[in-house]
Amino acid sequence: MIYTVTVNPALDYVMQLKKVDAGSVNRSNDCQFLAGGKGINVSQILNQLDVDNTAWGFVGGFTGKELVRQLNVKKIESDFVTISDDTRVNVKVHAQKETEINAAGPKIDEQEITAFKARLDDLNEGDIVVLSGSLAPSLPTDFYEQLLPTIREAGAEFAIDTTGEALLATLKYHPLVIKPNHHELAALFNTSFANDQEMLEAAKKLLDMGAQNVMISMAGDGAYLVTKDHIYYACAAVGTAVNSVGAGDSMIAGFVGTYYKTHDVVEALKVGSACGGATAFTEDIAVKSQIDTVLPQITVE
Amino acid sequence: MIYTVTVNPALDYVMQLKKVDAGSVNRSNDCQFLAGGKGINVSQILNQLDVDNTAWGFVGGFTGKELVRQLNVKKIESDFVTISDDTRVNVKVHAQKETEINAAGPKIDEQEITAFKARLDDLNEGDIVVLSGSLAPSLPTDFYEQLLPTIREAGAEFAIDTTGEALLATLKYHPLVIKPNHHELAALFNTSFANDQEMLEAAKKLLDMGAQNVMISMAGDGAYLVTKDHIYYACAAVGTAVNSVGAGDSMIAGFVGTYYKTHDVVEALKVGSACGGATAFTEDIAVKSQIDTVLPQITVE
Repeated sequence: MIYTVTVNPALDYVMQLKKVDAGSVNRSNDCQFLAGGKGINVSQILNQLDVDNTAWGFVGGFTGKELVRQLNVKKIESDFVTISDDTRVNVKVHAQKETEINAAGPKIDEQEITAFKARLDDLNEGDIVVLSGSLAPSLPTDFYEQLLPTIREAGAEFAIDTTGEALLATLKYHPLVIKPNHHELAALFNTSFANDQEMLEAAKKLLDMGAQNVMISMAGDGAYLVTKDHIYYACAAVGTAVNSVGAGDSMIAGFVGTYYKTHDVVEALKVGSACGGATAFTEDIAVKSQIDTVLPQITVE
Repeated sequence: MIYTVTVNPALDYVMQLKKVDAGSVNRSNDCQFLAGGKGINVSQILNQLDVDNTAWGFVGGFTGKELVRQLNVKKIESDFVTISDDTRVNVKVHAQKETEINAAGPKIDEQEITAFKARLDDLNEGDIVVLSGSLAPSLPTDFYEQLLPTIREAGAEFAIDTTGEALLATLKYHPLVIKPNHHELAALFNTSFANDQEMLEAAKKLLDMGAQNVMISMAGDGAYLVTKDHIYYACAAVGTAVNSVGAGDSMIAGFVGTYYKTHDVVEALKVGSACGGATAFTEDIAVKSQIDTVLPQITVE
């Protein structure tokens, strides 16, 4: 089983209108609530790849109930901890410009955190936990790190999508894969890269610090996968990127889901690149047919 | 019993933040959902005046459930028709300026309209129905008018807060009270008033067309009540108006609630003016103590 973790999911309230006049009353005839969150995106792609998975995290209130209802409609399995505060609602206004107002997120108390940690008792050897997305403001900043010893003791793997110090702190627990993009990788070492060689040296340092695999995503320039033994390069699919938001989540889902089934990192890189590309080319998270269209374009060397 | 009608209620999502940058991702740490609607405002004031009342209208989906839950918390009795579409959510952004984006409202089908009309079977002689607020876009434009014969046949009274042709169409059913403000009254007759005398003549025309009482609200300039026999003037309370939105609803609630208890139009005008003033002076709908503070200031001549 793969478990995805979204600690601060959101209902996105998407409002379409021609024009917003600041300071006035405006009207929209097209509004909808959509369940969102990076871990939920990962679950959605795993479903498309036919990989059993369960979404973990915290939900609460009438907004949390609606979020779970929407996941049920999409047949995304979930086992969230129910909290007393409400799941946040982010507003996305699509008018002259796309403007977002995101809410911080709910209060999560000690008892609710304890209930979440008890979910880890379900883990078995070979399971993979995918940790992604920002923390709710009331969670301790080392929340992800606190989970890692238990995950590893259960014989499970984990993948993590975070940046900076929070990412570095997880390396000693040997993440199955981390996916900094080329900018994030440079920022990790407070530097900039003159060429790919320097970038790959930096990725090797992350291996030395404990990562099992480092995937470097470079959007339209493809992706590298740096392992103990080898450096692989996957070309990018050809298409027009309209959506960068879920592409990274899709890439991780493709890698982790394929690794879970095959234990083949090259195949995982290939499918990961296809999923990332397919989502980048669509307005939403890619579905199976879209991934299948992109997959033959990806070659790995 | 008084019944208030809110056919297109809303959950207002109020987001506080310092500044919104259009085209960017903004963050708010203070967001809340509040049940809103003109008829609901009337119910809230009636509760403060200890007048039994029930809120009627249409609610649906997870947002409608939350709206009813909030009314229950405030001890506002309701008997809404449940519809399959979702109750709308309006976004109120309090940043550099106050900007609103209102949603149009749900689809309401024939069966749901029929279910609403069946609510009128509950009416008894002496009951009052207060019709206020805009129609949901899928309702027929003469929706209010369609209800009036049944209301009158039951021996019940009605008050209506609407404008223009929609208001004029109701006069032949003898509304207990209508409350155009001085601008709306002039617009009804496509004119402007040189003095109070002309304004009062216009109000008398509305009596001739069928209204039982015409209340003319003039904000800080007080209010007139024009009846068959007499013209009364109520002075305005002294205070700083911070909120015009719910003041009209409060004035109607004060008038109707007091008339229901006393059948005394002068007392009704007095309490109506006090409720309108008290709400105008507060950020929310006034509570009993605020109404009681304003009431002694209102004199009627």
